[in-house]
Amino acid sequence: MTRILFYLDEPGYEIWKEAFIDAIPGVDVRNYPHWGEPEDGPAYAFVWNPKPGIIADQPNITHVFSFGAGVDHILRDPTIPEELPVIRMSDDGLKDGMAEFVLMSVLMHHRGMHKLMAAQLQKQWIDTFYPTEAADVRVGMLGYGALARAAISRLLPIGYKINAWSRTPKATENNVTHYAGREDLADFLNATDILVCLLPATSETNNLLDADTLSLLPKGAAIINAGRGNLIDIDALVVQLDSDHLSGATLDVFPTEPLPQGSLLWHHPKITITPHIAAITRPKNATRYVAHCIAQIERGKQPDNLLDRSSGY
Amino acid sequence: MTRILFYLDEPGYEIWKEAFIDAIPGVDVRNYPHWGEPEDGPAYAFVWNPKPGIIADQPNITHVFSFGAGVDHILRDPTIPEELPVIRMSDDGLKDGMAEFVLMSVLMHHRGMHKLMAAQLQKQWIDTFYPTEAADVRVGMLGYGALARAAISRLLPIGYKINAWSRTPKATENNVTHYAGREDLADFLNATDILVCLLPATSETNNLLDADTLSLLPKGAAIINAGRGNLIDIDALVVQLDSDHLSGATLDVFPTEPLPQGSLLWHHPKITITPHIAAITRPKNATRYVAHCIAQIERGKQPDNLLDRSSGY
Repeated sequence: MTRILFYLDEPGYEIWKEAFIDAIPGVDVRNYPHWGEPEDGPAYAFVWNPKPGIIADQPNITHVFSFGAGVDHILRDPTIPEELPVIRMSDDGLKDGMAEFVLMSVLMHHRGMHKLMAAQLQKQWIDTFYPTEAADVRVGMLGYGALARAAISRLLPIGYKINAWSRTPKATENNVTHYAGREDLADFLNATDILVCLLPATSETNNLLDADTLSLLPKGAAIINAGRGNLIDIDALVVQLDSDHLSGATLDVFPTEPLPQGSLLWHHPKITITPHIAAITRPKNATRYVAHCIAQIERGKQPDNLLDRSSGY
Repeated sequence: MTRILFYLDEPGYEIWKEAFIDAIPGVDVRNYPHWGEPEDGPAYAFVWNPKPGIIADQPNITHVFSFGAGVDHILRDPTIPEELPVIRMSDDGLKDGMAEFVLMSVLMHHRGMHKLMAAQLQKQWIDTFYPTEAADVRVGMLGYGALARAAISRLLPIGYKINAWSRTPKATENNVTHYAGREDLADFLNATDILVCLLPATSETNNLLDADTLSLLPKGAAIINAGRGNLIDIDALVVQLDSDHLSGATLDVFPTEPLPQGSLLWHHPKITITPHIAAITRPKNATRYVAHCIAQIERGKQPDNLLDRSSGY
């Protein structure tokens, strides 16, 4: 019998329990704090933002599944054993959701939607203008993993020029120009009209976009952050927006979530805020993905998307 | 020598003149009112919203090119000779622009972007919700011509369920369910979550969406109008939005443009207004298209997209 120990830091357990029951025959799903005793036998944890210590307290946990593609919400707990396997979510629903969000946000910046919506508030009818052709808009993907590739597959048919940057060299696709490593970062940013941030949160990505690197973007560039809130030095971003070096920012992730009521970002005229909804793990797809990984594990295979602790993702 | 008589009811002549010079060898472009005399020889008119009478005054005009896909801005002039050929614009830039706008607007309604942007103004962080999977979102195209097909080609890869309605039966594509004629309209509207209006302005499409037909949409449906302002009875639309039968509307076209300052639409919380920018005719593509049509005409062939006066488009 498959035992799932469930932890979610917001409502939703009943929806997930039903989805697990649909996806895994005979599953036993237990919501925190009703995880039972270690003597109940081996179990898989499925968690988002777990309280520190609760995983280490349960030595019968053999694998930890993350609700999302990121695992920083798990690794921030120093008590989690080094050798405990952690598996990142990579269901199709997550990829589809991210691709939709990135495509929508890029189109909104390309087609001047933020400017038009601000004009509406002023009852202002902006006279005909000729938007840049998509072929002349350079979209830069900061991060080149599964989510970035899903987004690229939707952006390419529109005709955008696609560049992608990653920390280490990776296999590239047709029609994508690849930049790798710190030494390529300046050239990559210089060639970006709309920057899409999809990097994970690691010590190497912390404030990767600061006053220096943001100033490498061309005047009028826009930023979309759908990765992690730590990627951007927010104070530096606001300076670049206020000086009109950058034209706008769509932010889905923040250093502290929910974004605090006192944040000055809420009413910044060039910032669009969404509440970490770019890629939402959908119960039907996610539980089927977990079932697939458990089947792999129980046949003695290494599951897909096992966390590499040395790189942090 | 090719002679172009140019009329645009807003600034932009210099940009267009340069584009014509790039596209047509030896072209002679003349901006209204400097069209010259009929004795100067045969000429092509290229016009947007021309003053009544100016085309009839110039009997040397052999063909009239419309700046856009629509021709109502030309046909409203009753003095234009019945037999004068009128050619609709159908350049790739127009199709690309419309496809981008429709895709962006559908994604914004599907992913709740209007609700999220309203929440931002209230400093409200909406807790995680699970958006409908694209496969469960039914996009209904009201109109199934070249622009609708361009939009469909971008919507299908996202996974949306696509339905299309046209006045008369048409050849259908894979993965598009086709509805034709008044007798299918109720079934089509019943099966639509996001309605995209792309019909031309004709006597048959006037107020096609009125209190009766709007009420056939399912509760919570959204509307995007990128066709013509006359398609929708605006008062009936506002009633349906205010009663929460419809969730939102993106309007790019209006019965009177620019939208008058006194219009109540400007500040309606469920209406997004854009200033007729969905598909903007771009000089480079459009002048190349005109060059292609003139080459056809001068070889004795019928040009593409010749207006059929009996149908009005």
